[in-house]
Amino acid sequence: MEVINYLLGYNNLKIVQDTEWFNFSLDSVLLANFVTIRSSAKMIADLGTGNAPIPLMLSSKTKAKIYGVEIQKPIYELGLKSVKINNLEEQIILLNEDVKKIDQMFETDTFDVITSNPPYFKINEGNLVNNNDYKTIARHEVLMEIDDILRISKKLLKNNGVLGIVHRPDRLLEILDKMRKYNIEPKRIRFIYPKTNLNCNMVLIEGTKNGKQGLKIIPPLFVHDKEGNYTNEVTKMFGK
Amino acid sequence: MEVINYLLGYNNLKIVQDTEWFNFSLDSVLLANFVTIRSSAKMIADLGTGNAPIPLMLSSKTKAKIYGVEIQKPIYELGLKSVKINNLEEQIILLNEDVKKIDQMFETDTFDVITSNPPYFKINEGNLVNNNDYKTIARHEVLMEIDDILRISKKLLKNNGVLGIVHRPDRLLEILDKMRKYNIEPKRIRFIYPKTNLNCNMVLIEGTKNGKQGLKIIPPLFVHDKEGNYTNEVTKMFGK
Repeated sequence: MEVINYLLGYNNLKIVQDTEWFNFSLDSVLLANFVTIRSSAKMIADLGTGNAPIPLMLSSKTKAKIYGVEIQKPIYELGLKSVKINNLEEQIILLNEDVKKIDQMFETDTFDVITSNPPYFKINEGNLVNNNDYKTIARHEVLMEIDDILRISKKLLKNNGVLGIVHRPDRLLEILDKMRKYNIEPKRIRFIYPKTNLNCNMVLIEGTKNGKQGLKIIPPLFVHDKEGNYTNEVTKMFGK
Repeated sequence: MEVINYLLGYNNLKIVQDTEWFNFSLDSVLLANFVTIRSSAKMIADLGTGNAPIPLMLSSKTKAKIYGVEIQKPIYELGLKSVKINNLEEQIILLNEDVKKIDQMFETDTFDVITSNPPYFKINEGNLVNNNDYKTIARHEVLMEIDDILRISKKLLKNNGVLGIVHRPDRLLEILDKMRKYNIEPKRIRFIYPKTNLNCNMVLIEGTKNGKQGLKIIPPLFVHDKEGNYTNEVTKMFGK
Protein backbone atom coordinates (compact mmCIF):
# COMPACT_ATOMS: atom_id res chain seq x y z
CA MET A 1 0.00 0.00 0.00
CA GLU A 2 1.32 3.41 -0.98
CA VAL A 3 1.38 5.92 1.85
CA ILE A 4 2.72 9.40 2.43
CA ASN A 5 4.75 9.91 5.58
CA TYR A 6 6.41 12.95 7.01
CA LEU A 7 10.18 12.87 7.19
CA LEU A 8 10.21 13.78 10.82
CA GLY A 9 12.95 16.16 11.83
CA TYR A 10 12.68 17.86 8.44
CA ASN A 11 10.10 20.64 8.37
CA ASN A 12 7.21 19.63 6.20
CA LEU A 13 9.21 17.17 4.08
CA LYS A 14 7.07 14.24 2.99
CA ILE A 15 8.12 10.89 1.60
CA VAL A 16 6.07 8.43 -0.42
CA GLN A 17 6.53 4.84 0.62
CA ASP A 18 5.03 1.47 -0.12
CA THR A 19 4.30 -0.51 2.99
CA GLU A 20 4.71 -3.81 1.14
CA TRP A 21 8.29 -3.03 0.24
CA PHE A 22 10.47 -1.21 2.68
CA ASN A 23 10.37 2.10 4.41
CA PHE A 24 13.29 4.48 4.63
CA SER A 25 15.37 3.46 7.58
CA LEU A 26 17.25 4.93 10.48
CA ASP A 27 20.45 4.19 8.53
CA SER A 28 19.58 6.79 5.92
CA VAL A 29 18.64 9.38 8.54
CA LEU A 30 21.95 8.85 10.33
CA LEU A 31 23.93 9.10 7.11
CA ALA A 32 22.16 12.29 6.01
CA ASN A 33 22.94 13.82 9.39
CA PHE A 34 26.54 12.59 9.39
CA VAL A 35 27.90 13.46 5.98
CA THR A 36 29.89 16.68 5.58
CA ILE A 37 28.36 18.99 2.98
CA ARG A 38 30.59 21.99 2.42
CA SER A 39 28.79 25.25 1.69
CA SER A 40 30.59 25.35 -1.66
CA ALA A 41 29.04 22.03 -2.77
CA LYS A 42 27.31 22.24 -6.15
CA MET A 43 26.75 18.60 -7.13
CA ILE A 44 25.79 15.62 -4.96
CA ALA A 45 24.96 12.03 -5.91
CA ASP A 46 23.23 9.37 -3.82
CA LEU A 47 23.91 5.88 -5.15
CA GLY A 48 21.14 3.30 -4.68
CA THR A 49 18.83 6.01 -3.45
CA GLY A 50 15.72 3.85 -2.97
CA ASN A 51 12.68 6.08 -2.56
CA ALA A 52 15.10 9.00 -2.16
CA PRO A 53 15.12 9.67 1.61
CA ILE A 54 18.75 10.85 1.53
CA PRO A 55 18.29 13.38 -1.32
CA LEU A 56 15.14 14.65 0.42
CA MET A 57 16.92 15.12 3.74
CA LEU A 58 20.06 16.60 2.17
CA SER A 59 17.94 19.17 0.34
CA SER A 60 17.42 20.88 3.68
CA LYS A 61 21.20 21.13 4.27
CA THR A 62 22.42 22.40 0.90
CA LYS A 63 21.52 24.29 -2.26
CA ALA A 64 23.51 21.82 -4.38
CA LYS A 65 21.87 19.76 -7.12
CA ILE A 66 21.27 16.25 -5.81
CA TYR A 67 21.19 13.27 -8.15
CA GLY A 68 19.63 10.08 -6.83
CA VAL A 69 20.31 6.85 -8.73
CA GLU A 70 17.94 3.91 -8.35
CA ILE A 71 17.79 0.90 -10.66
CA GLN A 72 14.46 -0.51 -9.44
CA LYS A 73 11.74 1.25 -11.35
CA PRO A 74 8.81 1.03 -8.89
CA ILE A 75 11.00 2.32 -6.09
CA TYR A 76 12.41 5.06 -8.32
CA GLU A 77 8.82 6.05 -9.10
CA LEU A 78 8.00 6.39 -5.43
CA GLY A 79 10.99 8.73 -5.22
CA LEU A 80 9.70 10.79 -8.14
CA LYS A 81 6.40 11.27 -6.35
CA SER A 82 8.19 12.39 -3.19
CA VAL A 83 10.25 14.92 -5.10
CA LYS A 84 7.10 16.26 -6.72
CA ILE A 85 4.94 16.61 -3.60
CA ASN A 86 7.82 18.49 -1.94
CA ASN A 87 8.26 20.74 -4.98
CA LEU A 88 11.92 19.81 -5.18
CA GLU A 89 12.11 19.02 -8.91
CA GLU A 90 14.58 21.86 -9.38
CA GLN A 91 17.02 20.50 -6.83
CA ILE A 92 16.61 16.72 -6.89
CA ILE A 93 17.04 14.76 -10.10
CA LEU A 94 16.27 11.06 -9.89
CA LEU A 95 17.74 8.66 -12.42
CA ASN A 96 16.34 5.19 -13.04
CA GLU A 97 19.76 3.80 -13.85
CA ASP A 98 22.28 1.18 -12.91
CA VAL A 99 24.83 2.71 -10.53
CA LYS A 100 27.54 0.74 -12.29
CA LYS A 101 26.93 2.69 -15.48
CA ILE A 102 26.68 6.25 -14.23
CA ASP A 103 30.35 6.91 -14.87
CA GLN A 104 29.31 6.96 -18.52
CA MET A 105 26.70 9.63 -17.84
CA PHE A 106 28.80 12.13 -15.91
CA GLU A 107 32.22 13.63 -16.51
CA THR A 108 35.04 12.65 -14.18
CA ASP A 109 35.47 15.00 -11.18
CA THR A 110 31.80 16.05 -11.19
CA PHE A 111 30.56 15.60 -7.63
CA ASP A 112 31.42 17.36 -4.40
CA VAL A 113 29.72 14.66 -2.34
CA ILE A 114 28.62 11.09 -2.97
CA THR A 115 26.49 9.26 -0.43
CA SER A 116 25.27 5.68 -0.29
CA ASN A 117 23.28 3.46 2.00
CA PRO A 118 24.10 0.36 -0.02
CA PRO A 119 22.99 -3.26 0.24
CA TYR A 120 24.70 -4.61 3.37
CA PHE A 121 24.83 -8.32 2.68
CA LYS A 122 27.04 -10.34 0.40
CA ILE A 123 25.12 -12.52 -2.03
CA ASN A 124 26.12 -15.61 -0.11
CA GLU A 125 24.86 -14.25 3.23
CA GLY A 126 21.42 -14.95 4.67
CA ASN A 127 18.43 -16.47 2.94
CA LEU A 128 18.51 -15.25 -0.59
CA VAL A 129 15.27 -16.70 -1.91
CA ASN A 130 14.69 -14.57 -4.95
CA ASN A 131 17.21 -12.35 -6.68
CA ASN A 132 14.53 -10.23 -8.30
CA ASP A 133 12.62 -9.40 -5.19
CA TYR A 134 12.77 -5.67 -4.34
CA LYS A 135 13.91 -6.18 -0.79
CA THR A 136 16.56 -8.70 -1.78
CA ILE A 137 18.06 -6.26 -4.26
CA ALA A 138 18.02 -3.47 -1.70
CA ARG A 139 19.64 -5.60 0.97
CA HIS A 140 21.99 -7.92 -0.89
CA GLU A 141 24.80 -7.07 -3.27
CA VAL A 142 22.95 -8.50 -6.27
CA LEU A 143 23.18 -5.40 -8.45
CA MET A 144 25.58 -3.11 -6.56
CA GLU A 145 28.63 -3.97 -4.51
CA ILE A 146 30.83 -1.85 -2.30
CA ASP A 147 33.47 -1.97 -5.05
CA ASP A 148 31.05 -0.33 -7.48
CA ILE A 149 30.43 2.59 -5.13
CA LEU A 150 34.14 3.13 -4.64
CA ARG A 151 35.07 2.79 -8.30
CA ILE A 152 32.37 5.32 -9.22
CA SER A 153 33.43 7.62 -6.38
CA LYS A 154 37.06 7.52 -7.44
CA LYS A 155 36.05 8.58 -10.91
CA LEU A 156 33.18 11.00 -10.31
CA LEU A 157 34.19 12.76 -7.10
CA LYS A 158 36.11 15.99 -7.44
CA ASN A 159 39.56 16.04 -5.92
CA ASN A 160 39.06 16.17 -2.12
CA GLY A 161 35.36 15.41 -2.65
CA VAL A 162 33.56 13.55 0.13
CA LEU A 163 32.18 10.02 0.12
CA GLY A 164 29.79 9.18 2.98
CA ILE A 165 28.47 5.66 3.48
CA VAL A 166 26.68 3.65 6.14
CA HIS A 167 27.41 -0.04 6.52
CA ARG A 168 27.78 -2.89 9.00
CA PRO A 169 30.84 -3.23 11.23
CA ASP A 170 31.58 -6.75 10.03
CA ARG A 171 32.41 -5.23 6.64
CA LEU A 172 34.48 -2.40 8.14
CA LEU A 173 37.96 -3.77 7.47
CA GLU A 174 37.05 -4.68 3.92
CA ILE A 175 35.58 -1.21 3.32
CA LEU A 176 38.59 0.60 4.79
CA ASP A 177 40.91 -1.50 2.62
CA LYS A 178 38.91 -0.88 -0.52
CA MET A 179 38.50 2.84 0.12
CA ARG A 180 42.25 3.22 0.13
CA LYS A 181 42.58 0.98 -2.92
CA TYR A 182 40.35 3.48 -4.75
CA ASN A 183 42.16 6.54 -3.32
CA ILE A 184 39.33 7.47 -0.97
CA GLU A 185 41.12 8.18 2.31
CA PRO A 186 39.06 7.38 5.44
CA LYS A 187 38.74 10.61 7.45
CA ARG A 188 35.80 10.31 9.88
CA ILE A 189 34.06 7.35 11.43
CA ARG A 190 31.10 7.23 13.78
CA PHE A 191 30.13 3.98 15.43
CA ILE A 192 26.44 3.36 16.14
CA TYR A 193 25.36 1.09 18.99
CA PRO A 194 21.77 -0.09 19.60
CA LYS A 195 22.28 0.53 23.35
CA THR A 196 25.17 1.48 25.63
CA ASN A 197 25.88 -2.14 26.52
CA LEU A 198 25.55 -3.74 23.07
CA ASN A 199 28.09 -4.17 20.30
CA CYS A 200 28.18 -1.73 17.42
CA ASN A 201 25.77 -2.71 14.64
CA MET A 202 26.18 0.14 12.21
CA VAL A 203 29.03 2.38 11.11
CA LEU A 204 29.13 5.74 9.35
CA ILE A 205 32.27 6.30 7.30
CA GLU A 206 33.44 9.37 5.47
CA GLY A 207 36.44 9.61 3.18
CA THR A 208 37.87 12.14 0.79
CA LYS A 209 39.21 11.50 -2.69
CA ASN A 210 43.01 11.77 -2.67
CA GLY A 211 42.76 13.03 0.92
CA LYS A 212 45.73 12.94 3.23
CA GLN A 213 45.87 10.46 6.09
CA GLY A 214 44.28 11.38 9.42
CA LEU A 215 41.31 9.44 10.71
CA LYS A 216 39.05 10.87 13.42
CA ILE A 217 36.69 8.62 15.39
CA ILE A 218 33.95 10.99 16.40
CA PRO A 219 31.71 10.41 19.44
CA PRO A 220 29.54 7.28 19.26
CA LEU A 221 25.79 7.26 18.94
CA PHE A 222 23.44 5.09 20.97
CA VAL A 223 20.08 4.52 19.30
CA HIS A 224 18.08 3.44 22.33
CA ASP A 225 18.34 4.21 26.01
CA LYS A 226 18.11 1.64 28.79
CA GLU A 227 14.30 1.73 28.68
CA GLY A 228 14.32 1.02 24.96
CA ASN A 229 13.26 4.52 23.92
CA TYR A 230 15.13 6.48 21.29
CA THR A 231 17.93 8.56 22.79
CA ASN A 232 17.73 12.34 22.68
CA GLU A 233 20.00 12.66 19.67
CA VAL A 234 17.99 10.19 17.61
CA THR A 235 14.71 11.72 18.72
CA LYS A 236 16.02 15.08 17.57
CA MET A 237 16.87 13.67 14.14
CA PHE A 238 13.36 12.31 13.92
CA GLY A 239 12.02 15.67 14.91
CA LYS A 240 10.31 15.20 18.22
CA MET B 1 61.36 9.95 44.07
CA GLU B 2 60.53 6.29 44.50
CA VAL B 3 57.09 5.65 45.97
CA ILE B 4 54.84 2.67 46.55
CA ASN B 5 51.27 3.03 45.35
CA TYR B 6 48.34 0.70 45.54
CA LEU B 7 47.03 -0.61 42.26
CA LEU B 8 43.52 0.42 43.03
CA GLY B 9 40.88 -2.04 41.92
CA TYR B 10 43.27 -4.89 42.64
CA ASN B 11 43.08 -6.13 46.19
CA ASN B 12 46.25 -5.27 47.99
CA LEU B 13 48.41 -5.12 44.87
CA LYS B 14 51.15 -2.53 45.18
CA ILE B 15 53.30 -0.96 42.50
CA VAL B 16 56.65 0.78 42.89
CA GLN B 17 56.97 3.95 40.85
CA ASP B 18 59.36 6.82 40.42
CA THR B 19 57.63 10.16 40.40
CA GLU B 20 60.39 11.69 38.25
CA TRP B 21 59.73 9.25 35.42
CA PHE B 22 56.24 8.19 34.67
CA ASN B 23 53.49 6.43 36.54
CA PHE B 24 51.48 3.54 35.21
CA SER B 25 48.65 4.96 33.21
CA LEU B 26 44.98 4.48 32.59
CA ASP B 27 45.94 2.91 29.26
CA SER B 28 47.50 -0.06 31.03
CA VAL B 29 44.54 -0.47 33.35
CA LEU B 30 42.14 -0.46 30.40
CA LEU B 31 44.22 -2.98 28.48
CA ALA B 32 44.52 -5.34 31.45
CA ASN B 33 40.74 -5.20 31.86
CA PHE B 34 40.08 -5.62 28.14
CA VAL B 35 42.28 -8.48 27.03
CA THR B 36 40.78 -11.96 26.82
CA ILE B 37 42.65 -14.45 29.02
CA ARG B 38 41.27 -17.94 28.49
CA SER B 39 41.24 -20.15 31.57
CA SER B 40 43.57 -22.55 29.71
CA ALA B 41 46.27 -19.88 29.34
CA LYS B 42 49.68 -21.01 30.62
CA MET B 43 52.10 -18.42 29.20
CA ILE B 44 51.65 -14.67 28.83
CA ALA B 45 54.10 -11.98 27.70
CA ASP B 46 53.84 -8.22 28.11
CA LEU B 47 56.12 -6.37 25.70
CA GLY B 48 57.56 -3.06 26.89
CA THR B 49 56.19 -3.71 30.35
CA GLY B 50 57.56 -0.58 32.04
CA ASN B 51 57.32 -0.96 35.80
CA ALA B 52 55.11 -4.00 35.18
CA PRO B 53 51.56 -2.71 35.84
CA ILE B 54 50.04 -5.08 33.25
CA PRO B 55 51.69 -8.26 34.60
CA LEU B 56 50.68 -7.21 38.12
CA MET B 57 47.04 -6.65 37.15
CA LEU B 58 46.86 -9.78 34.99
CA SER B 59 48.15 -11.89 37.89
CA SER B 60 44.74 -11.41 39.51
CA LYS B 61 42.95 -12.77 36.41
CA THR B 62 45.02 -15.86 35.64
CA LYS B 63 47.32 -18.53 37.00
CA ALA B 64 49.50 -18.36 33.87
CA LYS B 65 53.18 -17.44 34.01
CA ILE B 66 53.57 -13.83 32.97
CA TYR B 67 56.77 -12.58 31.35
CA GLY B 68 57.32 -8.84 31.27
CA VAL B 69 60.00 -7.49 28.93
CA GLU B 70 61.53 -4.07 29.59
CA ILE B 71 64.74 -2.76 28.03
CA GLN B 72 65.25 0.22 30.35
CA LYS B 73 67.11 -1.04 33.38
CA PRO B 74 65.98 1.45 36.06
CA ILE B 75 62.35 0.94 35.09
CA TYR B 76 62.80 -2.83 34.95
CA GLU B 77 64.24 -2.62 38.48
CA LEU B 78 61.16 -0.79 39.73
CA GLY B 79 59.14 -3.67 38.28
CA LEU B 80 61.31 -6.21 40.10
CA LYS B 81 60.60 -4.45 43.39
CA SER B 82 56.88 -4.48 42.70
CA VAL B 83 56.92 -8.19 41.95
CA LYS B 84 58.81 -8.82 45.16
CA ILE B 85 56.63 -6.76 47.52
CA ASN B 86 53.58 -8.54 46.11
CA ASN B 87 55.23 -11.96 46.51
CA LEU B 88 54.60 -12.72 42.85
CA GLU B 89 58.09 -13.97 41.95
CA GLU B 90 56.65 -17.39 41.12
CA GLN B 91 54.17 -16.03 38.61
CA ILE B 92 55.80 -12.93 37.14
CA ILE B 93 59.20 -13.11 35.47
CA LEU B 94 60.66 -9.80 34.36
CA LEU B 95 63.33 -9.69 31.67
CA ASN B 96 65.63 -6.73 31.13
CA GLU B 97 65.78 -7.34 27.41
CA ASP B 98 65.17 -5.80 24.03
CA VAL B 99 61.71 -6.83 22.81
CA LYS B 100 63.15 -7.18 19.31
CA LYS B 101 65.37 -10.02 20.49
CA ILE B 102 63.00 -12.13 22.55
CA ASP B 103 62.16 -14.35 19.62
CA GLN B 104 65.64 -15.75 20.19
CA MET B 105 64.84 -16.54 23.83
CA PHE B 106 61.56 -18.38 23.40
CA GLU B 107 60.41 -21.16 21.10
CA THR B 108 57.88 -20.33 18.41
CA ASP B 109 54.25 -20.89 19.48
CA THR B 110 55.01 -20.32 23.17
CA PHE B 111 52.48 -17.76 24.39
CA ASP B 112 48.71 -17.91 24.83
CA VAL B 113 48.51 -14.15 25.21
CA ILE B 114 50.76 -11.22 24.36
CA THR B 115 49.93 -7.74 25.58
CA SER B 116 51.56 -4.40 24.91
CA ASN B 117 51.04 -0.77 25.79
CA PRO B 118 53.71 0.37 23.36
CA PRO B 119 55.21 3.77 22.58
CA TYR B 120 52.47 5.69 20.76
CA PHE B 121 54.44 8.21 18.77
CA LYS B 122 56.51 7.86 15.65
CA ILE B 123 60.04 9.12 16.00
CA ASN B 124 59.25 12.11 13.82
CA GLU B 125 56.21 13.14 15.91
CA GLY B 126 56.30 15.68 18.71
CA ASN B 127 59.31 17.21 20.41
CA LEU B 128 61.90 14.50 20.55
CA VAL B 129 64.62 16.26 22.50
CA ASN B 130 66.62 13.33 23.72
CA ASN B 131 66.49 9.79 22.46
CA ASN B 132 67.95 8.38 25.64
CA ASP B 133 65.52 9.96 28.04
CA TYR B 134 63.34 7.37 29.82
CA LYS B 135 60.09 9.05 28.95
CA THR B 136 61.07 9.54 25.32
CA ILE B 137 61.83 5.84 24.95
CA ALA B 138 58.55 4.90 26.62
CA ARG B 139 56.52 7.25 24.44
CA HIS B 140 58.28 7.27 21.08
CA GLU B 141 59.14 4.38 18.82
CA VAL B 142 62.87 4.74 19.42
CA LEU B 143 63.52 1.16 20.51
CA MET B 144 60.25 -0.65 19.75
CA GLU B 145 57.83 -0.14 16.87
CA ILE B 146 54.41 -1.59 16.23
CA ASP B 147 56.02 -3.83 13.61
CA ASP B 148 58.26 -5.37 16.25
CA ILE B 149 55.31 -6.29 18.45
CA LEU B 150 53.50 -7.89 15.53
CA ARG B 151 56.53 -9.75 14.19
CA ILE B 152 57.21 -11.15 17.67
CA SER B 153 53.53 -12.00 18.15
CA LYS B 154 53.34 -13.81 14.84
CA LYS B 155 56.28 -15.93 15.90
CA LEU B 156 55.73 -16.45 19.62
CA LEU B 157 51.94 -16.68 19.91
CA LYS B 158 50.40 -20.12 19.79
CA ASN B 159 47.97 -20.75 16.98
CA ASN B 160 44.79 -18.82 17.86
CA GLY B 161 46.70 -17.06 20.65
CA VAL B 162 45.57 -13.56 21.58
CA LEU B 163 47.37 -10.25 21.06
CA GLY B 164 45.96 -7.30 23.02
CA ILE B 165 47.26 -3.78 22.51
CA VAL B 166 46.29 -0.24 23.35
CA HIS B 167 47.14 2.58 20.96
CA ARG B 168 45.96 5.88 19.50
CA PRO B 169 43.19 6.06 16.89
CA ASP B 170 45.36 7.95 14.41
CA ARG B 171 47.45 4.79 14.12
CA LEU B 172 44.41 2.50 13.83
CA LEU B 173 44.41 1.92 10.07
CA GLU B 174 48.15 1.25 10.06
CA ILE B 175 47.80 -1.20 12.96
CA LEU B 176 44.88 -3.07 11.38
CA ASP B 177 46.85 -3.35 8.13
CA LYS B 178 49.96 -4.60 9.86
CA MET B 179 48.11 -7.05 12.09
CA ARG B 180 46.78 -8.79 9.01
CA LYS B 181 50.18 -8.63 7.33
CA TYR B 182 51.52 -10.61 10.30
CA ASN B 183 48.54 -13.02 10.36
CA ILE B 184 47.02 -11.54 13.50
CA GLU B 185 43.34 -11.19 12.61
CA PRO B 186 41.58 -8.24 14.33
CA LYS B 187 38.70 -9.68 16.39
CA ARG B 188 37.63 -7.15 19.03
CA ILE B 189 37.96 -3.39 19.26
CA ARG B 190 36.91 -1.03 22.01
CA PHE B 191 37.02 2.69 21.43
CA ILE B 192 37.79 4.94 24.40
CA TYR B 193 36.53 8.53 24.53
CA PRO B 194 37.57 11.13 27.13
CA LYS B 195 33.92 12.26 27.36
CA THR B 196 30.67 11.50 25.54
CA ASN B 197 31.06 14.53 23.26
CA LEU B 198 34.77 14.23 22.42
CA ASN B 199 36.54 12.25 19.73
CA CYS B 200 38.07 8.90 20.55
CA ASN B 201 41.62 9.24 21.89
CA MET B 202 42.52 5.66 22.68
CA VAL B 203 41.72 2.28 21.18
CA LEU B 204 41.93 -1.25 22.55
CA ILE B 205 42.52 -3.88 19.90
CA GLU B 206 42.56 -7.64 20.19
CA GLY B 207 43.51 -10.09 17.46
CA THR B 208 44.17 -13.80 17.21
CA LYS B 209 47.02 -15.48 15.38
CA ASN B 210 45.70 -17.13 12.23
CA GLY B 211 42.17 -16.29 13.42
CA LYS B 212 39.28 -16.23 11.03
CA GLN B 213 37.68 -12.95 9.99
CA GLY B 214 34.95 -11.46 12.15
CA LEU B 215 35.51 -8.17 13.91
CA LYS B 216 33.32 -7.10 16.84
CA ILE B 217 33.21 -3.48 17.99
CA ILE B 218 32.28 -3.80 21.62
CA PRO B 219 30.56 -1.01 23.60
CA PRO B 220 32.61 2.19 23.92
CA LEU B 221 34.06 3.49 27.14
CA PHE B 222 33.88 7.08 28.34
CA VAL B 223 36.59 7.99 30.81
CA HIS B 224 35.00 11.09 32.32
CA ASP B 225 31.42 12.16 32.82
CA LYS B 226 30.08 15.63 32.08
CA GLU B 227 31.31 16.95 35.40
CA GLY B 228 34.81 15.71 34.69
CA ASN B 229 34.70 12.86 37.20
CA TYR B 230 35.66 9.32 36.27
CA THR B 231 32.69 7.33 34.98
CA ASN B 232 31.40 4.39 36.97
CA GLU B 233 33.18 1.81 34.87
CA VAL B 234 36.55 3.53 35.20
CA THR B 235 36.01 4.12 38.91
CA LYS B 236 35.33 0.41 39.29
CA MET B 237 38.59 -0.47 37.53
CA PHE B 238 40.40 1.86 39.88
CA GLY B 239 38.69 0.18 42.79
CA LYS B 240 36.50 2.79 44.36
